[in-house]
Amino acid sequence: MSRAFPHRHLLDIDDLEVPDIVSLLDSAEVFFEVSRRPVRKVPTLRGKTLINLFYEASTRTRTSFELAGKRLSADVVNISTSVSSVTKGETLLDTVKTLEAMRPDVVVVRHSASGAPQFISERIACSVVNAGDGQHAHPTQALLDAFTVRRKFGTLEGLTVAICGDSAHSRVARSNALLFRLFGSKVRIVGPRTLLPAYAESLGVEVHEQLETALDGANVVMVLRIQRERLEGALLPSMREYSRTFGISPRTLALAPADALVMHPGPMNRGVEIHPDVADGPQSAVLDQVEAGVAIRMAILYHLAGEAGVDPT
Amino acid sequence: MSRAFPHRHLLDIDDLEVPDIVSLLDSAEVFFEVSRRPVRKVPTLRGKTLINLFYEASTRTRTSFELAGKRLSADVVNISTSVSSVTKGETLLDTVKTLEAMRPDVVVVRHSASGAPQFISERIACSVVNAGDGQHAHPTQALLDAFTVRRKFGTLEGLTVAICGDSAHSRVARSNALLFRLFGSKVRIVGPRTLLPAYAESLGVEVHEQLETALDGANVVMVLRIQRERLEGALLPSMREYSRTFGISPRTLALAPADALVMHPGPMNRGVEIHPDVADGPQSAVLDQVEAGVAIRMAILYHLAGEAGVDPT
Amino acid sequence: MSRAFPHRHLLDIDDLEVPDIVSLLDSAEVFFEVSRRPVRKVPTLRGKTLINLFYEASTRTRTSFELAGKRLSADVVNISTSVSSVTKGETLLDTVKTLEAMRPDVVVVRHSASGAPQFISERIACSVVNAGDGQHAHPTQALLDAFTVRRKFGTLEGLTVAICGDSAHSRVARSNALLFRLFGSKVRIVGPRTLLPAYAESLGVEVHEQLETALDGANVVMVLRIQRERLEGALLPSMREYSRTFGISPRTLALAPADALVMHPGPMNRGVEIHPDVADGPQSAVLDQVEAGVAIRMAILYHLAGEAGVDPT
Repeated sequence: MSRAFPHRHLLDIDDLEVPDIVSLLDSAEVFFEVSRRPVRKVPTLRGKTLINLFYEASTRTRTSFELAGKRLSADVVNISTSVSSVTKGETLLDTVKTLEAMRPDVVVVRHSASGAPQFISERIACSVVNAGDGQHAHPTQALLDAFTVRRKFGTLEGLTVAICGDSAHSRVARSNALLFRLFGSKVRIVGPRTLLPAYAESLGVEVHEQLETALDGANVVMVLRIQRERLEGALLPSMREYSRTFGISPRTLALAPADALVMHPGPMNRGVEIHPDVADGPQSAVLDQVEAGVAIRMAILYHLAGEAGVDPT
Repeated sequence: MSRAFPHRHLLDIDDLEVPDIVSLLDSAEVFFEVSRRPVRKVPTLRGKTLINLFYEASTRTRTSFELAGKRLSADVVNISTSVSSVTKGETLLDTVKTLEAMRPDVVVVRHSASGAPQFISERIACSVVNAGDGQHAHPTQALLDAFTVRRKFGTLEGLTVAICGDSAHSRVARSNALLFRLFGSKVRIVGPRTLLPAYAESLGVEVHEQLETALDGANVVMVLRIQRERLEGALLPSMREYSRTFGISPRTLALAPADALVMHPGPMNRGVEIHPDVADGPQSAVLDQVEAGVAIRMAILYHLAGEAGVDPT
Repeated sequence: MSRAFPHRHLLDIDDLEVPDIVSLLDSAEVFFEVSRRPVRKVPTLRGKTLINLFYEASTRTRTSFELAGKRLSADVVNISTSVSSVTKGETLLDTVKTLEAMRPDVVVVRHSASGAPQFISERIACSVVNAGDGQHAHPTQALLDAFTVRRKFGTLEGLTVAICGDSAHSRVARSNALLFRLFGSKVRIVGPRTLLPAYAESLGVEVHEQLETALDGANVVMVLRIQRERLEGALLPSMREYSRTFGISPRTLALAPADALVMHPGPMNRGVEIHPDVADGPQSAVLDQVEAGVAIRMAILYHLAGEAGVDPT
């Protein structure tokens, strides 16, 4: 397993090139098997320090990184907003420099402000991983999605990926659009006109206003989580109407090929953007995505913090 | 040390038979000594993953499981309600399936809803330990109590156990009643008429309305924690009256034999259900129970997640 | 590296003598290098249990102790107020005895009540480290400050240390004053008359009411954090006036020698007690202090919990 990974940080998909992503996905295949062994642990990052710095709560992502770090034998420290110095009015930069002085190897950052991980990465001596920043990027989610898709279809090229929902405000949508466009797959975005992103044209993403055309021939149907707070604003019609028009149900999923993969980054609003029969149905890859998440994060940590020349497992 | 433990989960005492319990208690004796060594750690569960999923706060129980897991060299991840996806409206089942996909070996669940751990255990591929569910069961508490009693009296048979307080709403009372009845000990329940459980008759538990008869000849006096919220309701008289009538003080403890063991699951309301002189007195086993707790939980984790044929310590 | 450390606890600087402090600082030099290695971990405290019991939130201090423990291979458990039994009304003593029964080797305590760590230490069988108690003491902060000063000046003797700000309410000020007086350095305290401590005279600390005299010839300028809540009370003039009169800015720092070291325990109120150009300037040791913190805490844990005769690294 090669470690020719030419980056110090993982901030956004558009920093990566195809061989970088392939390298991460290939490593993740190895780590995927580690979590399925009776002994789910390798000594790869023994003596390395991982700090999870979460300014937004996220059990799923924090737990995934924590397990990834621990299964690589790293020391893992969790810091969450509610108990942090932030409440004492310290600046983000002071928090970051303080953590840097404790000599971590990797800081994983989730923040509600777009660009916060990049800001940090330019001012810290260790590696930074973006675990989701505002409406900007969620590269580890896109990578785990790519891992899941590649395991199903054997390739990331020549596919048609339909992203359904509130793309305008979704870091998951943007990072996935970047990744699949990079591999030359077709990306379609579908949702209410008010929720379509400005970046569509520059990325070569098709914009659809109806599921009928968006799902036609789609290999992958990515369902985005509807933020309930948007439903209360002016951007969305009622939840019921949203669900009927853009929700993925057995009826609307039938618009896609029978072997289309259904994905959702979680947590799901069952009955809103995704029907329970689809979430739990044979085409759903929702839990495969979660399992892929631990593997991808192990691969990322390994590539950023592992010693060169050391067998990862 | 044998590992013939025929269960995948630990949900309730009434799933167990006498040899299962004896096997757990015997293993716990070994692990009890581990925590007293200068090096309080064995490699038994190296590479195994334990998730503490706590929907109710409990420092005592969470810390006990966390230490048990770490002293067995497992990787331990804590998830508590306040920072979980629950706040984003995810269903319990989705949370559980998400965790399952991260390939844990054991999930320890505390939940305010009776039956939640059972519900989870029927839908997850790993082992589930009930760390307390609603008013239903708290099997690890009963097992650590049994461990403490057995160390004191050398047996769990032929004893008389008096359980004092709000038995009707107590998972500790129910689990202990089941366990001691299983070994053929006599179980008495005593407290205000409004707080006596419906299950008494079916379990063959004696119901007493006065400490005088309940404590007469009792080897074990289990004091239950009074939930202060019940005192404000209609179920209990004033705290002072409760304390005088059913609290265990030097005066009321004298109704039991001089070598009776006083137990309390903690945290104690000193001066309400238990007098400080009793809590700190020579008959008190309160801290022995806490120490037993780590040992019992190590034994449970070992029996559920350890590799067959491996020496535990 | 000798381990002739004659104390079971670390509660306050005035329990220590010069050789104790020198011994801790010398060990910290070794551990300082450990955190700079590619593999930042030694097996020194394998199988030992460290409990961080924090009744006040402090990311910085908790993270520092957590990393110190983990880099020594100890098992570390964090307990913070918001999720503790405290909310269930358990007494501090019951919490402590409960933790003791789980057989930790060291309990690190932060508490808003002065004397709480001492109270605990008199009632527990393991070592206790004071991580800050009320307005009383913060000995690990003073030790990391001493470590930082000794690395800069090669000695703790014959220096002049100016402590600027709210000394009356500062455990950092008191612990540092004790430490530097013990080594025969001159300690000056400067700030508004309402914020000067009663202990000054008994410790032989000079009291200044103006930066001009306090900083004259000072080798070390320690800036204390202004508690914003005091500004709202009657004890302090406006923040702007405080900043102009007692804040350390390039203008006021020029009153001290050009090689004076500027220190701050963090988190900093930039623009209040310290000007950003000073905080980030060439004389600032703020981040050195943080790095020293992990090393000092490793040294303390090693001296309190390490096995005699074992090479620490």
